[in-house]
Amino acid sequence: MNGIKMVTIGGGSSYTPELVEGLIKRHAQLPVRELWLVDIPAGEEKLNIVGALAKRMVEKAGIPLDIHLSIDRRAALQDADFVTTQFRVGLLDARAKDEGIPLKYDVIGQETNGPGGLLKGLRTIPVILNIAKDMAELCPDAWLINFTNPAGMVTEAILRYSRLNKVVGLCNVPIGMRMGIAKMLGVEADRIHIDFAGLNHMVFGLNVYLDGDNITEKLVDDYLSGEQSGVSMRNIVDLGWEPDFIKGLNILPCPYHRYYYQTERMLQEEKEAAKTAGTRAQVVQQLESDLFELYKDPDLNVKPPQLEKRGGAYYSDAACSLIDSIYNDRGDIQPVNTRNNGAIKGIPEDSAVEVNCVITKDGPKPITVGELPVAVNGLVQQIKSFERVAAEAAVTGDYQTALVAMTINPLVPSDRVAKQLLDEMLEAHREHLPQFFEKVEA
Amino acid sequence: MNGIKMVTIGGGSSYTPELVEGLIKRHAQLPVRELWLVDIPAGEEKLNIVGALAKRMVEKAGIPLDIHLSIDRRAALQDADFVTTQFRVGLLDARAKDEGIPLKYDVIGQETNGPGGLLKGLRTIPVILNIAKDMAELCPDAWLINFTNPAGMVTEAILRYSRLNKVVGLCNVPIGMRMGIAKMLGVEADRIHIDFAGLNHMVFGLNVYLDGDNITEKLVDDYLSGEQSGVSMRNIVDLGWEPDFIKGLNILPCPYHRYYYQTERMLQEEKEAAKTAGTRAQVVQQLESDLFELYKDPDLNVKPPQLEKRGGAYYSDAACSLIDSIYNDRGDIQPVNTRNNGAIKGIPEDSAVEVNCVITKDGPKPITVGELPVAVNGLVQQIKSFERVAAEAAVTGDYQTALVAMTINPLVPSDRVAKQLLDEMLEAHREHLPQFFEKVEA
Amino acid sequence: MNGIKMVTIGGGSSYTPELVEGLIKRHAQLPVRELWLVDIPAGEEKLNIVGALAKRMVEKAGIPLDIHLSIDRRAALQDADFVTTQFRVGLLDARAKDEGIPLKYDVIGQETNGPGGLLKGLRTIPVILNIAKDMAELCPDAWLINFTNPAGMVTEAILRYSRLNKVVGLCNVPIGMRMGIAKMLGVEADRIHIDFAGLNHMVFGLNVYLDGDNITEKLVDDYLSGEQSGVSMRNIVDLGWEPDFIKGLNILPCPYHRYYYQTERMLQEEKEAAKTAGTRAQVVQQLESDLFELYKDPDLNVKPPQLEKRGGAYYSDAACSLIDSIYNDRGDIQPVNTRNNGAIKGIPEDSAVEVNCVITKDGPKPITVGELPVAVNGLVQQIKSFERVAAEAAVTGDYQTALVAMTINPLVPSDRVAKQLLDEMLEAHREHLPQFFEKVEA
Amino acid sequence: MNGIKMVTIGGGSSYTPELVEGLIKRHAQLPVRELWLVDIPAGEEKLNIVGALAKRMVEKAGIPLDIHLSIDRRAALQDADFVTTQFRVGLLDARAKDEGIPLKYDVIGQETNGPGGLLKGLRTIPVILNIAKDMAELCPDAWLINFTNPAGMVTEAILRYSRLNKVVGLCNVPIGMRMGIAKMLGVEADRIHIDFAGLNHMVFGLNVYLDGDNITEKLVDDYLSGEQSGVSMRNIVDLGWEPDFIKGLNILPCPYHRYYYQTERMLQEEKEAAKTAGTRAQVVQQLESDLFELYKDPDLNVKPPQLEKRGGAYYSDAACSLIDSIYNDRGDIQPVNTRNNGAIKGIPEDSAVEVNCVITKDGPKPITVGELPVAVNGLVQQIKSFERVAAEAAVTGDYQTALVAMTINPLVPSDRVAKQLLDEMLEAHREHLPQFFEKVEA
Repeated sequence: MNGIKMVTIGGGSSYTPELVEGLIKRHAQLPVRELWLVDIPAGEEKLNIVGALAKRMVEKAGIPLDIHLSIDRRAALQDADFVTTQFRVGLLDARAKDEGIPLKYDVIGQETNGPGGLLKGLRTIPVILNIAKDMAELCPDAWLINFTNPAGMVTEAILRYSRLNKVVGLCNVPIGMRMGIAKMLGVEADRIHIDFAGLNHMVFGLNVYLDGDNITEKLVDDYLSGEQSGVSMRNIVDLGWEPDFIKGLNILPCPYHRYYYQTERMLQEEKEAAKTAGTRAQVVQQLESDLFELYKDPDLNVKPPQLEKRGGAYYSDAACSLIDSIYNDRGDIQPVNTRNNGAIKGIPEDSAVEVNCVITKDGPKPITVGELPVAVNGLVQQIKSFERVAAEAAVTGDYQTALVAMTINPLVPSDRVAKQLLDEMLEAHREHLPQFFEKVEA
Repeated sequence: MNGIKMVTIGGGSSYTPELVEGLIKRHAQLPVRELWLVDIPAGEEKLNIVGALAKRMVEKAGIPLDIHLSIDRRAALQDADFVTTQFRVGLLDARAKDEGIPLKYDVIGQETNGPGGLLKGLRTIPVILNIAKDMAELCPDAWLINFTNPAGMVTEAILRYSRLNKVVGLCNVPIGMRMGIAKMLGVEADRIHIDFAGLNHMVFGLNVYLDGDNITEKLVDDYLSGEQSGVSMRNIVDLGWEPDFIKGLNILPCPYHRYYYQTERMLQEEKEAAKTAGTRAQVVQQLESDLFELYKDPDLNVKPPQLEKRGGAYYSDAACSLIDSIYNDRGDIQPVNTRNNGAIKGIPEDSAVEVNCVITKDGPKPITVGELPVAVNGLVQQIKSFERVAAEAAVTGDYQTALVAMTINPLVPSDRVAKQLLDEMLEAHREHLPQFFEKVEA
Repeated sequence: MNGIKMVTIGGGSSYTPELVEGLIKRHAQLPVRELWLVDIPAGEEKLNIVGALAKRMVEKAGIPLDIHLSIDRRAALQDADFVTTQFRVGLLDARAKDEGIPLKYDVIGQETNGPGGLLKGLRTIPVILNIAKDMAELCPDAWLINFTNPAGMVTEAILRYSRLNKVVGLCNVPIGMRMGIAKMLGVEADRIHIDFAGLNHMVFGLNVYLDGDNITEKLVDDYLSGEQSGVSMRNIVDLGWEPDFIKGLNILPCPYHRYYYQTERMLQEEKEAAKTAGTRAQVVQQLESDLFELYKDPDLNVKPPQLEKRGGAYYSDAACSLIDSIYNDRGDIQPVNTRNNGAIKGIPEDSAVEVNCVITKDGPKPITVGELPVAVNGLVQQIKSFERVAAEAAVTGDYQTALVAMTINPLVPSDRVAKQLLDEMLEAHREHLPQFFEKVEA
Repeated sequence: MNGIKMVTIGGGSSYTPELVEGLIKRHAQLPVRELWLVDIPAGEEKLNIVGALAKRMVEKAGIPLDIHLSIDRRAALQDADFVTTQFRVGLLDARAKDEGIPLKYDVIGQETNGPGGLLKGLRTIPVILNIAKDMAELCPDAWLINFTNPAGMVTEAILRYSRLNKVVGLCNVPIGMRMGIAKMLGVEADRIHIDFAGLNHMVFGLNVYLDGDNITEKLVDDYLSGEQSGVSMRNIVDLGWEPDFIKGLNILPCPYHRYYYQTERMLQEEKEAAKTAGTRAQVVQQLESDLFELYKDPDLNVKPPQLEKRGGAYYSDAACSLIDSIYNDRGDIQPVNTRNNGAIKGIPEDSAVEVNCVITKDGPKPITVGELPVAVNGLVQQIKSFERVAAEAAVTGDYQTALVAMTINPLVPSDRVAKQLLDEMLEAHREHLPQFFEKVEA
C-alpha cells in the first residue's frame, strides 16, 4: 500500500490535535498519508477550526500527511485502512441531560455509567452500526478503532449485531491508571506493567508489576494510606477507599468503581458539585469553548497544553499506539476491548471484554486470565448483563427491554424509579432515538 | 437396614410438628423407625414441649416410630441415615438484630439477604461444618438435608469446606411459588411444573407449565395486572411489579427478588413496619410464644393449623418428600440446592445452585439449564460472588474478607456504610462469632 | 387437537409392524388417529406389503387408527404432529458397499462407524435436511423423531444446518443394553437404571443401578468373567473384553465400542464372516426377503416374532415411548440424542449428544453429566470431531473436507488409505451423492 | 541476588555443550554465576567428560561462570534459581526397548508416542515428582524448566500431583518448525511467527505469518507440492502428506502427527529401518559414542558442530531463551507447556497444554486460543485423555490404569495387544518401575 489512509469520525472534536500530534510523533514508523476528519453538518464550524489547526501542525512538522475535512462520511470511508470514531451523538447537550436528569431522582448521573450510560448507548449504537455497515461495503479490510463511549456496550453491539470482525474498542482508563501509578511511585511509566482484566470502565488491575516484580500488595497498602487514592481520573472526584475493604480486595480498581462501591458518597458529591460548579458536562462545555478559542489562533501550530485538562488525556495517543502496533505487527501488550474468546472465564465467549492483548497485524489476541477474583466477578457479570440487554434495546428499540436494562443497572434503586427515569430520559433525547419513537408515530 | 434412623438438629423448633406429620403421612413407604430431636441445652425446655407433642402425634397415628429427645448431638448422630438441620444460631434474638441494625443505616434488614444474611451465615457456617465433621466420623453414609438459612451460602460452604458429599440444601420458596400459582389459577398444584434455576432465595421460574403447556407469558401478563402479584410469601410484603419490567423479563422472579429490583420501596415498607408492628423477628417471636403455648396442651395430638402462619410452610414437608425420593429412588423432579456441575453455565461447577433435579438414591442430579436469561444472569452471579466471599469469611474469621463480602452485597450502598454495619453487627453477635474474636483476645 | 397425525418416512421398512404394534399397545394414552407411511417410488412394492399388514394389525386391534400409504412426502407432512424417519438412502445395496469396500483395504466395514458411517452420513444428511425444510413449511410445530442412522451425525447436522428445533435422535442401543443386563441378572428391565452419556453408537453406561443401588463394579466384574460379555447386540460379534482393561475402565461400554478398543480382532472376525456368511448387509438382505414373504400372508395380523432377529429390536418401541412421553408430558427419563447445552463438559453446547433426558411436552432436557470419565473422554471427542467434519462435508459436498473426515476417523489407518477408500466409495455411491458430483459435471 | 544459580539434572547429557553455549552467548543479560551439572552415579563418567568440556568452553569465553559437577542432587538444588531437567531414566538402553518391543507387535515404536511414550512416562514421572518435592524444600522460589520427555505427560503430572507452581515444560519441536519454514522460504526465522496450540508433540501451527501477513494457505499449498514436506525433524522420516488432506486441514501439523495420520506408512518405514540401520535408539547410541569421543579432546573448547545432528537441536537454546525472558521479564512470546487456564477451549483448565505464551518474571501467560479447529480437536483430546490416565498410572503404579492408558492410545490396535505389550514392556523396564513391582514383591 502507498501509505495509510485514516478516517476519523467526529473529527471536529477538541481531541483531534492530540491525534495529529500522535501521528506526527510516529510518522517514521507509521506512514499515514491521508487523514480524513469527518463530522456532521452541525459540527462543520468546529471541524473547520480544528482542521485548520491540524494542517498548521502538519505543516510545522514537515511530514507528508494530507488533512481532508469532510461531512460526507461515505466518501471519506472509501478504501480506508483505519477508521477511528470519537463522536458524541447529541453533543455535550445530551451529556448534560444524561448527567442532570438522574440527579433529580437521587441517582448517579454519569455519562458512561448508570442511566446516563444506558441512554448514551441507546443513542450511539445505531449510529455505530451504520458506520460498520458502510465499512463492510466501502473498506471491508479496514480496522475500526472505536473510542466512542460507552465503549464496552458499543463494542458488544458491534460484535453481536454487525458483520465487522476488525474492531477494537479503546479506552484511556488503563493507560491513565498506569500513568497515575508511575507518577505516584516516581518512576517511568514503561517500568510499570499491569494485568488488566474486566470490562470497559469496569476494569481491574489484577496485578501490578514494577520491573517485573509484583508490587500489588504494597501498592494497595500505600494506595489507601491517605484520603486521596493517587490513581485518579481528572473527571472523577477522588474519595479514597475504606482501607480494610481495598486490602481485602487486594487488586486495583479503576476510578469508575467508586460509583459502585461508594455509590452514596459519589451521589452526594455529584449533588454538591451540581449546585456549585455544575455537572461535569457544564464544566466541559466551558473547557471546550475555551479550547476552540485557542484553536482559532492562526499562530498556534502545536497541541496546546490546555487540552490535557480536558479529561480524555492519552486517548488519541492510545489510538495511535494501537494502530502502530497493528500496522507494524509489534506483538506488544495493550489493554483493549475485544471478543473474550474464553480469556475471562464465565463471560460469554462472544462478548466484549477489556483485557491485556498481544497486538498483531491480525488484531488483538487476549492473554488468558482464567477466573476473575471471586469478589469482583459478580459485579463484572452484572455490568455485562446490563450491557447486553442495553445493546439489544438499542438495536430493537423495544421499550420493555430498555426498562429491563435500566432496572438491572446496579445504580438504579428500583423498577419504579427505573421507569420514571427511562420515560423522562427517552423523551429528553427523543430526537436521537428514532428507533423508539418512529414506529409509534408511524 | 431395619428401618431409617433420622436425626433433626434444632429439633426443638416450632416447625417440628410439621416434620412429624410428614413422616406419619408417608409411613407406609418411608419406614423411619427412630427420630432423634436434638437441641442445645439452652433450647431444652422447648425441645421437651415440642418433643412431647411429637410423641402424642405418633401415638395417635399408631405407627412404629420412636421419638428420642437429646442434647448430645454426637450420640444422636451415631449410625444415622438422614440428618436434617433447622437450627438458628442465636435464636430469634439474633434475627431481631439482623433485621434491626441495618435499618438504622437505611439498609434493608432481612435475615437471609443483605447484611442480615451475611451475619447469619457467619454465625451458622462454623456450626454446620462441625456437624459435617461429626457426620463424617459417626454416620459417613448419611445424607445431610439442610434447611438452615441462609441455605445457599451454607450449602456452598459445605461443598467447599467439608468432605461431606451427601448434602442437599432445601428451601420452601420453590414449593411456595408453585402452590401460589396453582392457587391463583385455581388448579391442583401437581398440574403445575416450573423450571427452577438460580440460587437459594434467588431462584427464578424460567418456564411455568400447566399440564405441560408453557403458560409463562400469560402468567406474567396476569400476574402483574393488579397491585398484588399473587405469588407471594407470607413474610414478604407484596408490592407488585412494574408491568413493563416484568413483561420485559418474561420469567417468574421469587419473592426475595423484590429486595433487589424494588430496593427503595422495600426499605420504606420495612421502616414503616418496624415503627408499627416491629420487625419480622418481633412478629415471629410473638407467633412462636403463642405456638409453644398451644403445643403445651396435653390434649393436642396433631399439627395445629396456626403453624402455617409461621412463614416456613411446606419446609418440613419438602424435607420428607426429598428423603422419600432418595430412599425410594423415585427419580422425580424437585428443586434443591446442590453442586452445579455445569447445569447453569457461567457458575462455577463446584458451587451450590438451586435447580430442578432428578432425585435418586444416589442423590440429586441437576437438569441442564444452559445460560440463564441474560437479564438475570448478572444478579445471580453477583449473589454467588457474595456467597463465596461470605463463606470464606465465615471459615477464616478474616475481618477484611467479611468487609469485602458486606461491601459487594448489592443491598449495601458503600464501603463506608459497609464498615459501619459490619462493625456494629459483629459486636452485636460477638458471642456467636468466636472465629472473629477469639484470636484477637488470645 | 383431534388426535395425533403421525408420519413415518421410510414407512415401507420391515420395522413398521413393530411401530404399529407400539401404537396399538399405547392407544389408550396416545391417541394417534392417522399414521402416514411414506416411501419413495422404488420402495412402493414393499410399502404396499407392509402397509397391508399394518392395516390388518389395526383392524384386529379394533382401534380408530387410519393407515395411509403415500409416495408424496410433502402431502403427507401437511399438519403432522410427529414425523419419524427410518429410511435408508440406497437401500441395503448401499449398505453392502459400505461394509464391503473397506474390507478390501483391511479396514472395518460397518454401516454406522468408520468409512461406512461416513458415506452413509454423506448420503443421508442432505435428504434429512430437505425433510427438515419441508417440515418448517408444512408442519412447523411437529416433532421430528429421527432414527435414521448414523443418528448422531444426522442429529448434529439438523442442529447445525437446519432451523428445526423440535428434533430428537433415537437409538435402540441404550434400551438394548438395559434389556441385556436385566436378562443377564434375571430381573425385570424396569428395575435397572443406567446413567447413559456419550454420543450415538458411542454411549457409555457410567453407572448401572438395580433398584437404585449402584452395581456397576459388580457388573463389570461379572460381565467379563467369561468369553462372552452378555451385553451384546445381535448384529455385533461378542468377543469379550480384556478383564483388566474393562475393570480399569469401570464403566459399561456399548457394543460398538469393540470397533475402537478391539479394532484388529473385529476386523479379523469381519473378514472371516465375509468369506463364509457374507457381510452383515448380505445376511440382512436375506432376512428382509424372508420377512416380506411372511408379511404377504393375508392371515398375518400381528407383528411376527421373526422380526426380532432383525437387529433393530426395540427401535420402534423406543420411538412410541418417546412420543408418548412428549405428548403426555411424562417427565420420565429416556436416553436420546439432543443438543448438549452443557450437560457433558467439553463437548460444544450446540452439538448433539446421547444422554439421559427428562422427557417433557417441551422436549428432552438433558440431565447434567459433568466431565466424562477421563479414559473415555478422548475417544468421544474424537468421534464428535469426526461427526462435525463429516456433517460439514455432507452439506458442502467439499471433497477435501470429506477426506479430512475420513482420515481423522480412528478406524482409518492413514491419509493415503483414506484417500483410496474415499475415492472408491464416492464413486460407488455416486448416484446418491449429487452434492459431490453434480457441480463437477455441470 | 548475586547472579543466578542454575542446576541441570542429567548434566552428563551430550546436549550440555549447547546449554553452555547458550549461557555464554547471553552472559551480558543473563548473569548465571553457577551452573551445577548433576547426574546419577552410573552417569559419572560422562558427566566428567562433558563437564570438562563445559569448563574449557567457559574458560575460552572468559566469563565469570563456575561449573560444578555433582552426583548429589539435593546438595546441588540448595538455593537454586533455575533447575533444568534433561535426564533419561534407563538411558538409551531403555529407549531401545521402547522402540523395539512394539515393532514385534506391529505397533509404532517411538520414544514419546504410543507404547514407548507410555513406558517412558511411567519411568520418568516418579523421578520428576521427587525432584519437585526436593525443590519445594530446598529452593522453593526456583523455576523448573523441564525438557525431559514425554514433556507433555511430565508437565501434566507435575501440575496435578506436585505442589510446584513454577514449572514450564519445553520442547524444541515448535522452534524446529519455525526454523524449518524460515529455511524453506529462505528468510530469517525472526520474520516468521506461528500461532502454536495443542499439546506437546501434538502441537499445531494454526496460523503462520511472515512479517505479520498470514501465509498459512500458501504454505500448505507449497508445503505439500512435492514428496518432501520441508518441515521435518531430523529424527522422523518425512513421508509427505496427501495433498487434499493437508489442504482440507489448512493448518500446520507437527512432525509427530505423521504417527497418527500416516500410522501404517510410518510403521512400514520403522520396520524397514530397524532391519537395516537399527532403531532410532541404536542410531543415537552410535552418535552419542562418537560425540563423547569428540568431547574428550582436551583442545575442544566450543560446541562441536556434530551435535546438531543429534536430533535435539535448539533444545538447550530454547531453555536459555526462556530463562532469559523470565529473568528479564521480557514479555516476549514463546511456545511452552503450561497450565491451560482456559486458553484452549474444551481442555481442562488445570491440564498442561503447549501454546504460545507471553513470558514474564511471573511465568508464562498463555494467549487465548478458543476452540481448536474441529478437525484436530478430537485427536488432541484423545492424547490428553491418554496423558492424564498415563500420569495417574505412573503415580499409583496401578496395573489396570496402565492397561487403560495403553489401550486408549490411538496407536495401539486393541485391548488384547495392549495387554501383551504392557506385560512385556513392564517386565523389560522392571528395574525402573518400582511402583509397579515393589508392592507385589513385598
